[in-house]
Parts: sequence; C-alpha cells; structure tokens
Amino acid sequence: MSPTTSQVYLPNTSSAYINRYSEVRQRSEDIAGRLSPEDQQVQSMPDVSPTKWHLGHTTWFYETFLLRPNLPDYRDFDPQFNFLFNSYYEAVGPRQLRAERGLITRPALDEVLAYRAHVDQAMCEFFDAADADDIKENCWLIELGLHHEQQHQELSLMDIKHVLSRNPFGPSYRKKEPAAVFTTHDLQWFDVPGGTYRIAQDADDRFTFDNEGPAHNVALADFTIASRCVTNGEFQAFVDDGGYATPEFWHADGWALIREQGWQAPLYWHRGGDGDWIEFTFAGLCPLYHDAPVCHVSFYEAAAYAAWAGKRLPTEAEWETAARYFDVARRPGAGANQMASGYLRPIPAGDADSQAPQGMLGDVWEWTESAYLPYPGFKAASGAVGEYNGKFMVNQMVLRGASCATAPGHARVTYRNFFYPHQRWAFSGFRLAA
Amino acid sequence: MSPTTSQVYLPNTSSAYINRYSEVRQRSEDIAGRLSPEDQQVQSMPDVSPTKWHLGHTTWFYETFLLRPNLPDYRDFDPQFNFLFNSYYEAVGPRQLRAERGLITRPALDEVLAYRAHVDQAMCEFFDAADADDIKENCWLIELGLHHEQQHQELSLMDIKHVLSRNPFGPSYRKKEPAAVFTTHDLQWFDVPGGTYRIAQDADDRFTFDNEGPAHNVALADFTIASRCVTNGEFQAFVDDGGYATPEFWHADGWALIREQGWQAPLYWHRGGDGDWIEFTFAGLCPLYHDAPVCHVSFYEAAAYAAWAGKRLPTEAEWETAARYFDVARRPGAGANQMASGYLRPIPAGDADSQAPQGMLGDVWEWTESAYLPYPGFKAASGAVGEYNGKFMVNQMVLRGASCATAPGHARVTYRNFFYPHQRWAFSGFRLAA
Amino acid sequence: MSPTTSQVYLPNTSSAYINRYSEVRQRSEDIAGRLSPEDQQVQSMPDVSPTKWHLGHTTWFYETFLLRPNLPDYRDFDPQFNFLFNSYYEAVGPRQLRAERGLITRPALDEVLAYRAHVDQAMCEFFDAADADDIKENCWLIELGLHHEQQHQELSLMDIKHVLSRNPFGPSYRKKEPAAVFTTHDLQWFDVPGGTYRIAQDADDRFTFDNEGPAHNVALADFTIASRCVTNGEFQAFVDDGGYATPEFWHADGWALIREQGWQAPLYWHRGGDGDWIEFTFAGLCPLYHDAPVCHVSFYEAAAYAAWAGKRLPTEAEWETAARYFDVARRPGAGANQMASGYLRPIPAGDADSQAPQGMLGDVWEWTESAYLPYPGFKAASGAVGEYNGKFMVNQMVLRGASCATAPGHARVTYRNFFYPHQRWAFSGFRLAA
Amino acid sequence: MSPTTSQVYLPNTSSAYINRYSEVRQRSEDIAGRLSPEDQQVQSMPDVSPTKWHLGHTTWFYETFLLRPNLPDYRDFDPQFNFLFNSYYEAVGPRQLRAERGLITRPALDEVLAYRAHVDQAMCEFFDAADADDIKENCWLIELGLHHEQQHQELSLMDIKHVLSRNPFGPSYRKKEPAAVFTTHDLQWFDVPGGTYRIAQDADDRFTFDNEGPAHNVALADFTIASRCVTNGEFQAFVDDGGYATPEFWHADGWALIREQGWQAPLYWHRGGDGDWIEFTFAGLCPLYHDAPVCHVSFYEAAAYAAWAGKRLPTEAEWETAARYFDVARRPGAGANQMASGYLRPIPAGDADSQAPQGMLGDVWEWTESAYLPYPGFKAASGAVGEYNGKFMVNQMVLRGASCATAPGHARVTYRNFFYPHQRWAFSGFRLAA
Repeated sequence: MSPTTSQVYLPNTSSAYINRYSEVRQRSEDIAGRLSPEDQQVQSMPDVSPTKWHLGHTTWFYETFLLRPNLPDYRDFDPQFNFLFNSYYEAVGPRQLRAERGLITRPALDEVLAYRAHVDQAMCEFFDAADADDIKENCWLIELGLHHEQQHQELSLMDIKHVLSRNPFGPSYRKKEPAAVFTTHDLQWFDVPGGTYRIAQDADDRFTFDNEGPAHNVALADFTIASRCVTNGEFQAFVDDGGYATPEFWHADGWALIREQGWQAPLYWHRGGDGDWIEFTFAGLCPLYHDAPVCHVSFYEAAAYAAWAGKRLPTEAEWETAARYFDVARRPGAGANQMASGYLRPIPAGDADSQAPQGMLGDVWEWTESAYLPYPGFKAASGAVGEYNGKFMVNQMVLRGASCATAPGHARVTYRNFFYPHQRWAFSGFRLAA
Repeated sequence: MSPTTSQVYLPNTSSAYINRYSEVRQRSEDIAGRLSPEDQQVQSMPDVSPTKWHLGHTTWFYETFLLRPNLPDYRDFDPQFNFLFNSYYEAVGPRQLRAERGLITRPALDEVLAYRAHVDQAMCEFFDAADADDIKENCWLIELGLHHEQQHQELSLMDIKHVLSRNPFGPSYRKKEPAAVFTTHDLQWFDVPGGTYRIAQDADDRFTFDNEGPAHNVALADFTIASRCVTNGEFQAFVDDGGYATPEFWHADGWALIREQGWQAPLYWHRGGDGDWIEFTFAGLCPLYHDAPVCHVSFYEAAAYAAWAGKRLPTEAEWETAARYFDVARRPGAGANQMASGYLRPIPAGDADSQAPQGMLGDVWEWTESAYLPYPGFKAASGAVGEYNGKFMVNQMVLRGASCATAPGHARVTYRNFFYPHQRWAFSGFRLAA
Repeated sequence: MSPTTSQVYLPNTSSAYINRYSEVRQRSEDIAGRLSPEDQQVQSMPDVSPTKWHLGHTTWFYETFLLRPNLPDYRDFDPQFNFLFNSYYEAVGPRQLRAERGLITRPALDEVLAYRAHVDQAMCEFFDAADADDIKENCWLIELGLHHEQQHQELSLMDIKHVLSRNPFGPSYRKKEPAAVFTTHDLQWFDVPGGTYRIAQDADDRFTFDNEGPAHNVALADFTIASRCVTNGEFQAFVDDGGYATPEFWHADGWALIREQGWQAPLYWHRGGDGDWIEFTFAGLCPLYHDAPVCHVSFYEAAAYAAWAGKRLPTEAEWETAARYFDVARRPGAGANQMASGYLRPIPAGDADSQAPQGMLGDVWEWTESAYLPYPGFKAASGAVGEYNGKFMVNQMVLRGASCATAPGHARVTYRNFFYPHQRWAFSGFRLAA
Repeated sequence: MSPTTSQVYLPNTSSAYINRYSEVRQRSEDIAGRLSPEDQQVQSMPDVSPTKWHLGHTTWFYETFLLRPNLPDYRDFDPQFNFLFNSYYEAVGPRQLRAERGLITRPALDEVLAYRAHVDQAMCEFFDAADADDIKENCWLIELGLHHEQQHQELSLMDIKHVLSRNPFGPSYRKKEPAAVFTTHDLQWFDVPGGTYRIAQDADDRFTFDNEGPAHNVALADFTIASRCVTNGEFQAFVDDGGYATPEFWHADGWALIREQGWQAPLYWHRGGDGDWIEFTFAGLCPLYHDAPVCHVSFYEAAAYAAWAGKRLPTEAEWETAARYFDVARRPGAGANQMASGYLRPIPAGDADSQAPQGMLGDVWEWTESAYLPYPGFKAASGAVGEYNGKFMVNQMVLRGASCATAPGHARVTYRNFFYPHQRWAFSGFRLAA
C-alpha cells in the first residue's frame, strides 16, 4: 500500500489513534497559521467558509459526535458553538446560515484556538480511558472525525485561495514556492478491455465513507484512458481556438452560464500586461505553467474541452476500473502530488510510464461524466452523520482521484468527490477517455 | 406491437407518410382549437411557451430541416419566422429569447395558421414528388419532425394547463371530462432477478431519438418494482404526516427549494374552503381523485416520498428492464391512459394484474433515480438536429413511460424523457422500487 | 380658456355629462380598436398593463365608486372582476398582482367589451335618474372617473408602444402617420423675476386632483426658462460627446443604473444599419426626427444632459410660475400637440414666439428638479379614492405640462404628473432652466 | 455658540489646526480600539464598511486632497491604497467595489494603523511648513477633511453596531453603559407663525458643506412642532395597534417593502423570551427603554407613524426655521446627547422646557418630509471634492439635527444629512409637526 492511499485497517487500540489524531489536528493549525486573523475571518462567496470557521467546525464534530455521547463529565466549551459551528446537520439543531459564516467576528481566532485545545484535551482523556471495546465501537466515528478534518484541510486551502484572489493585488499565501520545473510527456492512451468489473467498497474493517459502497458489478465496454491530465498548454489551445465562443462544444446549461458570467478561461487565469495568461497561485500572480495539469475548471469546461478534442470524460466506473486495472495505488511511478509534497499546485506528469497512467491520485481532482448518485443498495450511515453524504446525491458530478491539496492518507481509488458542474474553486481538472 | 408503443418500422413510401403527417398536424390544431387567441398568446413562466408559438415552431421545424434543403422552389412564408420560431438551435442562427416568446403578439394566431397551411401544402408537394430513395434518405428527419410535433403536443397541454392555472378563478380548458370513476388495487410488488441485461436501442430501421441508444449491457442486482404508481391518496398521507416539514426525507437541494418556495403539496393542489385538498385540472378546480396516480410532483418530492415510505425510485435501467421483463408494451392489461383515451388526467390503475405492473406506458411520466447522461458510445445526430438531445445531458433526471397527455404512437420502452429535478408542470409521478 | 387645458367648471346637470362621458368612453375603445386580441393581452414589463386590462379597469372604477353606491338595482357584471380590475386600492379589497395582469386570458376581449357596454348602460340610467342634487353630490367622483380614464388612455398608448417595441421586427400601431415636417427655432431664454408667487389650486368648483392643492406661496429667485424643449438633435450631440460614458454629468444612482442596464441613448433609439440613429414609433422604425423634442428619457438622462449643457431643470414651482407668467394656457402660439392633434409623437416647436415659451402643454411631459411631495396642507381625498395620489408621494419626480398622448381636456398648468427617476416609457422630455 | 454646534470661524493659522487635527484623528482610533482585527474586517451588508476601511479611507482623503498636491516631497505610503481606499470619487480613478470592501484582508489592521501614522506625520510637516496664505488657501479642504472624518466616526459606529447585530448572540461593543435612567415629559407643541424665512448658509468664513447653501428665502405657513421626538413607548403603541399591518398608514413603496422584508418593528427590536420587546445596543441585548426616542426607523416607518398619529413630519425648511426661531443651538436646556456624552444611545428628553423644543441637536437624526435636492443656486465644490454631495441629490430624504453618535463640533442647524427612505441603520428617529 503506497502512502498515497488510505485503505488502512481500522486500529483497535487507543494508542494507535493518539498520534494520528495529533498529527491531523496539528496540520489544520499549520495551514491556518500562515494567515492573519483578518484572513481567517472572511467569506468571499457563499461556497467559501472562513478559515476560522473550519478550525471551529472540525472541532465541533468531535465534541458533538464523540465527546458529548461518550465522555461522561464532558463540559461544552461554549454552548453557543453548537449553533455557530454546525455545518448542515439538521438533526443536530438550528445553525448559523451558511452564507453568513463570515459575519461571526466573535469568537475571535484566539478563542477558537482555545476551543481546539479544550477539545483536544478531552479527546486525550477519551483515548486514555478507552478500552478495546470502546475503540471498536467508536472507531468508525473516530475515523470519520479524522477524515472529516482532512476534507476541511483541503477545503481551507481552496477557500483561502479564493479569499486572497479577491484582493486586486494578488497577495500570496506563502512567500516561496518549492522549485518544480518539469516538462510533461506526449499524451498516450491506455486500453482497458470491456467486461463486468467490480467497483466500490463494502463496509469492512477498513474505513470508507458510506457513499463508497456497496461494492457492485458494472458492465463496461472497451475503453481507453489518457496517460495524464489535460495541461494548461493544451487548454490554452482550446481557449485560443475560440472554445469559449463556440456553443456546439458546450452543454446548454454550461453555455448559458459562461455567457451570463462572462467566463473566458479557467478561474484564476488573467491576462497579464503583455496579453499573456497569468495565474493566481498561493505565491501570488505567476506565469501560466504550461505543462502542468489545468486546474480550477468546472465540469462544463472539462466537457467542452473534451468535445472540442473529439474525446469524452471517463465515467466514474471507468476511472475506478482503470485505476484498479493498472494498480495505480501501488505504483511509485504513479507518484502522487498531494498536500504532503508541498507544492500546493499541480505539477507536470514528467516522463511517460509505459505501465500505467500517471497522476491519478494527485495534482487535480478529475471530473467524470458520472452524476453523483447512490450506488445500488446504498444506505446512509445511521444517526445524524447519515447526513454526511446521501442528501447531496442530486445535481452534482463525481470527481475522482486526489489533488495537490489532499491531506496525507486521505486518498483512495474508491473515493467519490463531488461538486456542482459550475463549481471550480476546487483543485479540479480532468483526464480524457475515448 | 400494441397501440401504446411506436417502434414501427420506418416507411419507405410517401403514401405511408401523407396520412400520418396530416393526422399529426391536425391534432396540434385540435389541441389549440379549444383556446382563444389570448389563451394562445401567454407565457406564464419562462419554462412555458405560448400555444401559438408551439404551432409556429413545429411548422418551422419542417420548413428548416426538410423543405428548404429538399424542395427546390420552396419559398419561406416569412423570413422573420426563422428568428421567431427557432427554439434553441444555435447552428441555425439567432432567435427570440426563450423567456420572451410571450411578447410576440405579431404574427397573430391567424397568420400562424396560414403559415401552417403554407408549409403543409409544401410538404404535400414534397411527398408527391419524392421517390423511394428520397424517402429513404429523409425518413429519419421526417420521423423526427413528426415525433417533435408530438412532443410539442404534450408540451402544449402542459403549458396551457399552467397558463390557465395562473388565473385566480380556475377556468377550464374544456367543459366536460369523460367519466372515469375507478378505484385502484392494493399495492403489490414484482420481482426481477439480478443479472446482466441489455437495454436501449441501436439505430436501425425503426425510429428512435439519438439519446435512446446505443444498446448496451447493464449489470443489475435483484430488485422489485411496484404494481402501480403512488396515488394521490397515498401522497396525501405523506403530506398529512408532515412530509414537507421534515428535512431528513429530502435531498439538501430539495429541502432548500421547498423552504424558499413555500411548497406544501404537489403543483395544482389547493386547500378548498373546507380545508380539503382540491386540484386544478383541465375541467377547472375539482376534488382530489384519491385513487389516481399523483401527478405534477418534482423529482425532489418523489424522492422524499420514497424516503418516507422506506423505499426508493427505480433506476432507468431497472425501469426499462422491468418493462421488458414483464413485456408491458404487448400486454393489454397494462393498457395505457395516453392522450388518445381522452381523459387528459391520470386515472386509477384498477384491479391488480398478476402478470405485470400496470400503467407503465400511461397516466404519468415516472421519475427515476437516474441522471440524464449519455449512454456508453452515444453519438449525437449530425448537423443542427444534433442539438436535439445531447446538449441537455447534465443536471436533469430521467423519467420513463408516458403520460395521459402523450400523443398516439409516441411511447416506447426505451424512451427517455428528462426534466430538472425541481420541475413539476409536466404530467410527472412515480412508482416505487426496492 | 384654451382647448389645451381643462379648468372647466363642474357641471351641475346630467345632460352636460352624458355626451362627455360617451366621448371619453368611446376614445378608449378607439385607441384599443387598432389592436388584435393578442396585442391587448400582453404585459411587456411590470410597469406596463395590457390594453384589455385598461379597458376593464377604467370600467371597474365607475362600477365601484359610482354605480354600486348610487344605483339601487345595480347588478355587478361579474363579481370576479372586482378582483381582476382593482389596480391598487387596498381599501377595496384583494386584487390580481400588478406584475401578473398579463396572465389573465379570461375574460377574453369580447367579454371585457361586454362589461363596458353593461356599465355604460348603467351609467346612462344613473345620469337619467339623477337630479341636480345627485349630480352636485357626485360630480367630483364623476369627474375623477373621467379624468382617470383619460389618464389610462395615455397609459394605454405608452404601454402598447412598449409592447410593440419588444417585437424584434418593429411592428406599427398604425399604418400612416400624419405629415408634420417642421424645423424648430434657435433656443431662446425667457426671464422671470424673483419674488413670492402663488401656485397650485384650491379645491373649488373646478375639477382638480387632490395633489394639485392647496394653493400656497413660494419664494423664488430670478430665473430664466428655455423657449422650447431640448430636441433629438441636441440630445444626440450629448450622446456623441460621450455623455453616457462620463460619470460627472450623472447622479450617482443614475450612473449606476446606466452602467448596469447598458443604456447608451433614450429608450426606443437604435442604431440603424448605417450606424445612424433610428427610433421606434407608432409607425414602426423611423429615422430620428432631429428638430422634435427628445422623448422617452428618464429623469437621470434629463439631469445629465442639463449638467453637460451647464444648465439645470426647472423646479415645478418655477415651471408653473413661468406657465402662469407667460399665460401659456391662453396663448394660441403656445399651441399644444396633444392626442387630439393626431401625431402621437412630439413635433418641432416651429418658429420662435417672442411672447412666451412654446410647447409647455404638449409634445412631452417635462421633467422638473422637484420630488413629488405633498404640498403644504395637502389632504388626501376621503375614502378609497384617497389612495389615488397621496401614497405615491415618495421616490418619484414631478413632470409638468402634457404630451402628444394626453387626452383632450386633460391638461392644466397645475397638473402634477410623476414617475420614478429611472422610468422612461412615458412621453417624457425636458426643458432647461438657469 | 454652544458646544453642540460647529459654526466656528475658519482658523487662519496652523497652530489652530494641529490640536484639532490630532483630536479628530485620535477619536477615530479610540472608536476602533475597542474592536478586534476580525471585528474591523467585516462588511455585514453593502451599506456597511469595515471599520478598518473607515480608518484607511479617512486617511486617504488627506493624502489625496491635501498632501499629494501640497507637500512637494510627499511619498505615498502604498500606491495600492489609492485603489483600495477611494470611496466613490470617479474623478480620482478606479476603486474597490463598495460591496466588496470586506474582502480586503490585506493590508491588515496593523498596516492601516501604520498608514495613519505615516499620513499624520506628513500632515504635521504640512502644518509646520504652512504660512498664513497656505492655510487660507487650504482651510476649506482641511476642514472638509476633518468634517469628513467626523462623519466617518459616526458611520463607523453605525456600521459596527450592524456588524455585531448579525451575530446571533448579541455581543457587546463595550461592557458597561453609563447610567441614564430618566423619564420624559408629556408631548407639547410649539407654534411658529407663517411668513418668509431665510434658511441655509452662504459660503463665508465659517465652514459648511456645499449642500448647506446658498442661503435663500422660503415661504412658510403657520406650523407647530413637537417638544420632543417620538419615544420607544409611543412607537410601540403604533406597533401594538397593528401599524405594520395596516396599509393606509404607509406610502405604497413602504408598504411593499415591509411586506417583502417582513418588517414588524424598528431595526434591532426583537421579541424576548417573554414576548416583550428587547433591543440590540452597544451593550448587547437590553430591555426597550420606553421614554427614549425611538431610533433606527426608516423614513417609511416615521411617515407611517405620523399618519397613524394624525400628524406629519416637518419639512426641512420648517425644522430649520423652528431651530432658529427657538434658538436651540444656544440653549443649554436643549442640551444635546451627542457622541461626547458617552451614552451612544438616545436618552429621554427629561422635563419639559417651556422655551424651546428639546433634543433637536442630539439623540437621533430626525427624518423630514423633504427630499434631498439642491437648494436654489446650489453649486457643487469644484474639483473631485465636488462629488462629495451633489451627485446624491435624488431619491433620498433629508434628516436634520444630530445623534448620540455625532462627533463633537460637527452639528449645525443648517446641516443636511440624507439617507434613502428605506435605510435605518443610522441613528434615525423623528419629531412630529402639524
């Protein structure tokens, strides 16, 4: 099992969790630590949450679903936080409107950090007191808490990138970017024969989200999948060819959207003074990185590019089948540019690998042609955490893989990410199929 | 082949078409004929088109795709009509904004009827002059024109029902309704064993829309499907049980929608003076017909009911497999209440039939759990008519079957109807699966 | 008293009313008579009402305020019409939403005409039966009904012009326009000395709206007023000089509006094929009439022009004082182009008149710099008709004079017309002051 | 000259300015000093600006209009700030969108404070170097800068109150409120005889805004004005009497607004747990203070109350004439509750004063019945500062007096404050007239 994936077996002792819990918790604070209190306060669009809110909400999750039910003497840090930091759990009670999270200036950042310390202390008490049965009973919830916080780490990075991008002067999240000057290879195609394949994952002693199962058969025809994602340079050719002005490449909804919004290029692309495209990154405004995967495109843009190129996007069943067929999770050559690599931006796929497509578990989430729907036999988890996934299974499209902002140990070949087809502030790109 | 379905082989002589063409054309005018010029002018919401516009647009379709290319001396009735009556064909040129079709008071209804006569005359000339090769070359386009007009016949009925419903006094489309007092049977369940099934339809010498193919395999698990659709009475139990006030039954998007819009019941249900539900129909405001299938519900409402009932909606692959498995198209007991029956509203399914589910090809279009996406290997038709289906394959859900307003000869078990999950002015209901 | 004004003494016999009532009523039907049922059905924006609705609403006014209270045996034509044709009288009960008047396809036009005949018949009975006391008691309400219908005659013309303008092919209201080829004179200025003036009109035995009084003193400084309104040609110079692209000429609200709406010129101006301005008129699209007063401008545009020209708009007190000072109502040379002249568009002012400014009671309503506010001591009329004027006294600006679409006998120097500063579908222009 | 007004003669020496400049500058920082960086970052609605932005913008004003033109070696602190801190001066160049001021997390608060120090240092240099001629030439601009900053001090308090109010838990701006337990007197009426009065202020050697002049005559009829503003208790009687549910008290625009927005009471009034009204204040949620002037009402609410009470609002000419007639600026008994008193909320007027109405220069800004329009002969100041007032002279209503949040030395009887009739986050109340 490579470090790029997380299908680890669920631990059954507290000690196994304590370190992991601290690591995950520390990482959230490291991400936020580069930002001022003001940076952490702002909500630049309804989809975005303030960084401070992410810090509070991930903490609330443990308090609500683990501490309050399991730690007899647990005392809430502040009863108001149940209102402020509930995201969307109707079963847990009323909550701050999502679009108004940015209005909450109190608690200040310091108080939220004190809240984190309070809950971390209680979680340590919980782990210290827990015997093997307690762990066994709660391990799925503990894992859910950790995976939930990892998701919010990526969300934080998406959100803070958006916040900073709305400043007209392109401020940077960090001063220096790691050097990563590569070129990529000429696009190649990998064939997968048709047949009945098994995908998805039954609940067992490895953690998965409820939406990743049950395992089931799919009947696929022969297909072929690209050796790497579409690059900035390739996407620019589409732009230069009038891609955003030609209705036949677009879904009707996509065409209406880009006309209304005036989209001319991916999010964060701007024309520089000399007319060349530049890109807003965590290091501020930079020249476009031609050989890196294109990022921050919506499903509509991905599909329009595919139509222009005479190809299509893979379905999620094809994507997962290809990932399994070429065993990308175990293949060092498929090496993944995730958060841990430190780039925080997609980088070129490098030389061709004759054995497998590259970058399937890093760089950018890859749009598929599949709508986000329940798998056959899907059952939402019971209780309030059942709201985690199921209620979003309409109107959204599935993305597969992982991105340059995905936390360590979070990626899996069965992982189903999902966004609305117009959204593009995620680290989202795409790979062609045919 | 039962009269409820239309998988007829494509004719190869003109004479076979002439009568069918006249029948289809006459039916559009019969539908409109009950309405005043004012009734035919109004657009009561952006989704609705004026009846007069439907009369013009269906005519424009023949003029644009058949007459202009094929009839050498054809003279356009009025060149402005190309702008006014193009619906959404980007490749054919600019056009009247969809939401502003109701502003076009000129041409008056009489002129549109003259336009129809002009095109009908030219179509007769075309048929008279066509030899077998001409027919063979154009038969798919001719069929497309006829099926297109049949779709607009159902759309006209949906639209005029909506227009009349916005009048506070509930005017009627026609004075008298055919008598149809039935009760329905206790819900039963039909099992279909899991396995690999073939669905959809390859292009051959029978007409289908491009979105109905290619034929392909699907892997299905065992499932069971209801003997009839959910009724008004059953749906009212959901309403009475607080269904519209309980978030856990709803998709997040659906819940947000019903809160914002204040939905409390299906479209066209109102509380009467005594607090009982009444329903707006083509005969005006009437008591709710308890045993008839519930109609004018959105996907969200269908899915919420299913969640409340502890069931689910079928996928489109399940629906089609069940329809084929029980051979509903050939079964008189499955008899379909379509436009030709004259009720123009769903009627109760009657006694149970031990052989097959009832009403799969009539009464109401049935929401499925499937998003409207291209089938594997889908290719849009070439030329401007390629915009017919493919560009809508995002954000919408598939409905299967047919309704009380579906034109004769238009239904097929492979037919894929589609609407956005919030839309409910179609004759849309649903059947449960498990 | 010139025919251009209406300060006639209130009659005290029925016979004096019968002819006038018929004339007014007939004129409404003549205006509508040029239109098809479809033309009369449509509401092209929320501000616009369907012509058919105007025909019904003016009739409802007599039914509600005169017949039902005064004619013992009066039977409502249709009780539903009280809901459909109430415009905004809260005290009279609930009503059709203003923005949804265009949805009412039933009653059809024929029924509305029958409603008119029914009420006209009853009004004749009322007049026949009324003695001098009855007339005296009701004469203000009768006059209000007549003046109300005259207002709706002008509104009908405004509204139908807007409806037809939304058709992309510029259809005409009437085939032929009366010939009126004139040029205008070089702008001249008329001085009015400062001092205390009396304006407005106390209620007496001449009909005025409640908002025209009470009479009161105003203290004015010296001012000067233009001999005619600003012309199309002059306004085009402002357009050509970048007037719509220069923020310093505009109120902040006006500037925000024209940016958001993309206004580049007055309503109904379009660029013709050769780049020249053309104008939509009741005769369809025509070349701009350079010497005629500019029409269909908003207050913002009038004020921006004035700023560009280094002048200002008059206040309503200045306008009325000038009109009285130069006695324009009695001066044939000030001759008014109102509805009766038949042009239905503003025409050039012709040669200079050394005695008085021209066109103050015709061609276009003239925007003033005055907000529409109650005069000192204003009291709304009692009862439901008190809603006629007072409740609109905020956010609107006063226009003075009369227009090419003002009904005969309707203009007065004390008349206060009012619109929101962004509205421009009225026949609105302006005259400069300094 | 009482301390409540500011018609001080313009100084002609630097030394007179240096202290005043420091005092004004220090006060802005004192107001902000109670807030965290997060509190100062947020924009809770488009009308609101972040406190940090106010600190920057007031500084930009001196930099732009005084330092850059007058101090030869002046070096901009940061050229980007010209974009970020320009409010609405089109003539000065492009700028951050008003509704997006809250997105600017960089510069952080510390940098903005450094900007203030930089500009203050330069202003000291300017004052040190300036001789009497320099001062004479620039004194109006210096005064404008100071008055501008005073306006923003009151705006800051309005804005921060709104920001904190959006937190569901009612946080406080300061821990303790000064004690102020008073009752008020029974309403009395003061008569002013009709006649010609002179109001407004010509530009002379006392500072006024351009909109306060020129002085001019107004002709007034006899009127009477209330001895104090309407109180919370009186306004509650209107609420309890169904005031918000009775259309006849409201302007049509006001009625539409309160229906759409669901207004039931003034801004910041809430129902407490026991059903009694409580109020959000700078000390958090408090019981309603019955004898204090009602505050945070819109023009529509003020006018509706007046209609309910059978009275009206004064015009601004009446208000100013009354203030002059009773010489309220010089009368200690008319003592003003402004920012300097420290209450930061309106307090009861106390015992009756037989000589003059009370509270005309404090507690709440008083809505008048006058639209905000140019006085006769008004000329905007020349240059970019000409945008200060004139371009807002449409759609707004005048408020007179001063409020509990008005900075020391800022109030004048000629002062014209203005807001849109729907706005109510200012400290706005009203006084009746008849």
